[in-house]
Amino acid sequence: MQFQPLLEDIIATLRPELGRAGEVASYIPALARVPAERLGIALRTCDGEEAHAGDSTTPFSIQSISKLFTLTLAMREQGEALWERIGREPSGNPFNSLVQLEAEMGKPRNPFINAGALAVADRLVSRFDAKAQILAFVSSLCGEAVQFDEEVAASEAATGYRNAALANFMKSFGRIDNDVASVLDCYFHQCALRMNCLQLARAAGYLCRDGAHPLTGAPILTERQARRVNALMLTCGTYDAAGEFAYRIGLPCKSGVGGGIVAVVPDRLSLCVWSPALEPSGNSLLGIKALELFAAKTGLSIF
Amino acid sequence: MQFQPLLEDIIATLRPELGRAGEVASYIPALARVPAERLGIALRTCDGEEAHAGDSTTPFSIQSISKLFTLTLAMREQGEALWERIGREPSGNPFNSLVQLEAEMGKPRNPFINAGALAVADRLVSRFDAKAQILAFVSSLCGEAVQFDEEVAASEAATGYRNAALANFMKSFGRIDNDVASVLDCYFHQCALRMNCLQLARAAGYLCRDGAHPLTGAPILTERQARRVNALMLTCGTYDAAGEFAYRIGLPCKSGVGGGIVAVVPDRLSLCVWSPALEPSGNSLLGIKALELFAAKTGLSIF
Amino acid sequence: MQFQPLLEDIIATLRPELGRAGEVASYIPALARVPAERLGIALRTCDGEEAHAGDSTTPFSIQSISKLFTLTLAMREQGEALWERIGREPSGNPFNSLVQLEAEMGKPRNPFINAGALAVADRLVSRFDAKAQILAFVSSLCGEAVQFDEEVAASEAATGYRNAALANFMKSFGRIDNDVASVLDCYFHQCALRMNCLQLARAAGYLCRDGAHPLTGAPILTERQARRVNALMLTCGTYDAAGEFAYRIGLPCKSGVGGGIVAVVPDRLSLCVWSPALEPSGNSLLGIKALELFAAKTGLSIF
Amino acid sequence: MQFQPLLEDIIATLRPELGRAGEVASYIPALARVPAERLGIALRTCDGEEAHAGDSTTPFSIQSISKLFTLTLAMREQGEALWERIGREPSGNPFNSLVQLEAEMGKPRNPFINAGALAVADRLVSRFDAKAQILAFVSSLCGEAVQFDEEVAASEAATGYRNAALANFMKSFGRIDNDVASVLDCYFHQCALRMNCLQLARAAGYLCRDGAHPLTGAPILTERQARRVNALMLTCGTYDAAGEFAYRIGLPCKSGVGGGIVAVVPDRLSLCVWSPALEPSGNSLLGIKALELFAAKTGLSIF
Repeated sequence: MQFQPLLEDIIATLRPELGRAGEVASYIPALARVPAERLGIALRTCDGEEAHAGDSTTPFSIQSISKLFTLTLAMREQGEALWERIGREPSGNPFNSLVQLEAEMGKPRNPFINAGALAVADRLVSRFDAKAQILAFVSSLCGEAVQFDEEVAASEAATGYRNAALANFMKSFGRIDNDVASVLDCYFHQCALRMNCLQLARAAGYLCRDGAHPLTGAPILTERQARRVNALMLTCGTYDAAGEFAYRIGLPCKSGVGGGIVAVVPDRLSLCVWSPALEPSGNSLLGIKALELFAAKTGLSIF
Repeated sequence: MQFQPLLEDIIATLRPELGRAGEVASYIPALARVPAERLGIALRTCDGEEAHAGDSTTPFSIQSISKLFTLTLAMREQGEALWERIGREPSGNPFNSLVQLEAEMGKPRNPFINAGALAVADRLVSRFDAKAQILAFVSSLCGEAVQFDEEVAASEAATGYRNAALANFMKSFGRIDNDVASVLDCYFHQCALRMNCLQLARAAGYLCRDGAHPLTGAPILTERQARRVNALMLTCGTYDAAGEFAYRIGLPCKSGVGGGIVAVVPDRLSLCVWSPALEPSGNSLLGIKALELFAAKTGLSIF
Repeated sequence: MQFQPLLEDIIATLRPELGRAGEVASYIPALARVPAERLGIALRTCDGEEAHAGDSTTPFSIQSISKLFTLTLAMREQGEALWERIGREPSGNPFNSLVQLEAEMGKPRNPFINAGALAVADRLVSRFDAKAQILAFVSSLCGEAVQFDEEVAASEAATGYRNAALANFMKSFGRIDNDVASVLDCYFHQCALRMNCLQLARAAGYLCRDGAHPLTGAPILTERQARRVNALMLTCGTYDAAGEFAYRIGLPCKSGVGGGIVAVVPDRLSLCVWSPALEPSGNSLLGIKALELFAAKTGLSIF
Repeated sequence: MQFQPLLEDIIATLRPELGRAGEVASYIPALARVPAERLGIALRTCDGEEAHAGDSTTPFSIQSISKLFTLTLAMREQGEALWERIGREPSGNPFNSLVQLEAEMGKPRNPFINAGALAVADRLVSRFDAKAQILAFVSSLCGEAVQFDEEVAASEAATGYRNAALANFMKSFGRIDNDVASVLDCYFHQCALRMNCLQLARAAGYLCRDGAHPLTGAPILTERQARRVNALMLTCGTYDAAGEFAYRIGLPCKSGVGGGIVAVVPDRLSLCVWSPALEPSGNSLLGIKALELFAAKTGLSIF
């Protein structure tokens, strides 16, 4: 398959829609001032072929896409023990709800809702200089040095009351080991990672290669663990729209409110789209359309 | 791939575990007296090859697996309008919970929780002699006349207070058009369909053939609709264990408390396992293990 | 204190507000066509003095006020055992919510939410020809034959899906002994009792007389039981406005969507107001104002 | 009425039960080490008569009883505007639940659940040196200098994750104006006030005197405001046991997990009991019994 012309075609098809619909995330100034009229796409196959088009090398705030990488780090370190603290089932409630957390005594339903990602961050803080470890890990995966956007991290911290509520709430159930401030600091920084589409397409490559490092082939996760992450992405990776993504795109995806979406075609390729304007569920509006076009044109769907 | 010896091997591997763990559903006498020591498996490929082993021709109560067929009938009749009444997202609450239904004003989260299946049944009752239509449809799909187990249907009706609560509750929100008794009668009958593994493996064949009738090739659903059903099975088909199924088996599945589980390998085959003893989530204990073995031995997984 | 001129004064003060605000209950036609411009008030002291003014002898549908009388009957019959099935605490949720009922395994929070009243009705149906018993009891209390409005009862039955959901839901938890249809029939009839202000002021008289029959003095409830009912009225008697009633009126009250409100001044008198237009919480708008005026002018408040 | 012998009689009656049942609050060490075998009672009438018996001058941690005084301060300052931030209805959920708070967009149901008390504390922090103001106000009410127990306040802060979750959660809805740390610091200190029964019986005196200062007669609250507080105490003052208190005692009460309970007999007297062992709802076990005896022996009940 010729991916480069395909990606260019997708960008050309969607470019007229730029700026027409959707809303850029505005809960912090640093995100609100990102121009809406951006659209990028990139992919990397299991064989190492790369293609990218549009704003594919413009860095953006990866936000919740970072949950993929911290989950992977925690799975590497903790193995099955990780799941004593975090569930693996879809939530059916908004990503930052406290209701289910109360009903389930502080155990988050899955690692991709905010509570779950905070529980994962707590696992990392217990073992490492977590922020340095995250930077090193993600940089290794994409073969380039990535950085935190400290302005974004500071903004998240200054407004992150809901996340502070979630972390304190879990702590009250004994589900957080470290002090809440450290866990939040790690979480706000991981959300503030700046990366571009090409870097993310590369970095997610272990998920389409049975857990092998996208560049070196070294084992990052076992095959079963990689499948686990893909299954979690499909069932829980896109806020309260997992069913809609499974249907319209048919690929495991993880999205962020910065407008990025990472998708995986098992055994074939990993890709990333970015466009900052979001639809109401918090996923990138044109990102979804780009992935739909990709799935339709390539016939690549897991269903 | 040689499926017949594979299925025989799976049965032989699991037979020693029969009767050792799990509980047969006991909420109605007709289900409670089914012997636990049963295990059957059957599949049919897109090319029409069939294989089956163990208790694969012993009929059992298909229970919630019937939701696949009534959903399909309703999608054929209503098209996209169906989704005005029923959501398509995972629930995160028990299959018969009223909490989410209240929060969402009587609109069920998806067609596989009980409330959703009742809403689907209401759609069928509006148009047809629903029970006759269901029998005709399922019989056509598997090429053999299937029947309701009237004793089971009567028992379900006599004890189905939770379902009556759900139906009345949706009716109070104006989400059920027909009288509650008719809707419940349809639902209790569909759950009481008696079929065997081979019949179910055949009947689900349209889901691995892009919507084409498993025997005649006539269009049952469009390709997109068939994919929709597969996506719903993966995200919502196995009660509150969808994440676990996605990981351990990696295939779209629909289970029933009678101990049956239907699974789909898109573009390859459909299969059905049956063993009455259930694990706590309400899914067949050995059925899950058989599907795991099948996925492991064949490498067939969507992830 | 001269009550007759006081009541006339209250009516005269409020008459100009008739028809200006609030909404008559419209969920069934028989209630919807009651003219909004009605206002009546009546009281009876512990010494047998009576006063009444306005539309005080016009019968209306007592609706949830009936929960007082069925609770009293059930307390007489069951004693403390009644509270194994029904709680005694405020609910904090709408009167017909199912959420709390699910969280508390089908045990209603108190006898004045609908679920609680249905559980009370079930207790009565277990022992008596419940409807006949209710008629006889209420007729005895007010010294006149009262009747069900069969048209209202039929309308309630025809539209009472939420109540049917509640009853079936409790039945699914084993909290209802009788068949759901009988319990609902009893409940819909008790709500359809037609009485006027004077009859209700008399009938509630045992609550200000330590449980003694308002006309004969025979023991209806023990002193402690009468206090229990008054406490329940104060904390749970007026839907989700118990706190507001406690503050603005300061008396135990039980309201109904027909526009009636019964209030009790312990050791002094019982009274009833009626005006069909309701405020958003489902309580009579002018009824509340009349009771506020009464409390302000007499200084009678429990606080 | 001769109150001194009555109180001595109550203490003598209950002394044999000391240490037999209930559990001292143990969530912080400073509370856990209070001996369970303590029982004190004190009252002060509207006329200034005082009586007390048992451990009535031993100081204890007043905990949630402090919510009475901070609410009063906030009502004085804010008037009706206070109720834009805080509801006035019973909650039906545990005192520290987040579920209702989420459903109601961060507005607490009433000022006596923890969320409500935190919202009140926020109001005070906005205007004053809140902690100094609280000390001055309570000291004035009881005519003696009272102090915070800094060890208790520090322990509360070190373990108060649930309260931190509540405060952050309200802040995320824009319902808290000040920084969370200041609000929590105020709240943890108010809970750590050390007072004895006699001081509390005096301090609550404005609630039985239509709002007049218990010692000077100066207006603390208007008559309507005082009645409002009494109504709130009756409907919401004793965690999830308001209905049970209304029935068994029949007086407005406010309890704390330190084992104190303040009760008000409108127009007559205010009283305070203390015994550290709690029953499961978090109210003092012998405190309840002492109040029941008091109500039974005096006939003083609002019902």
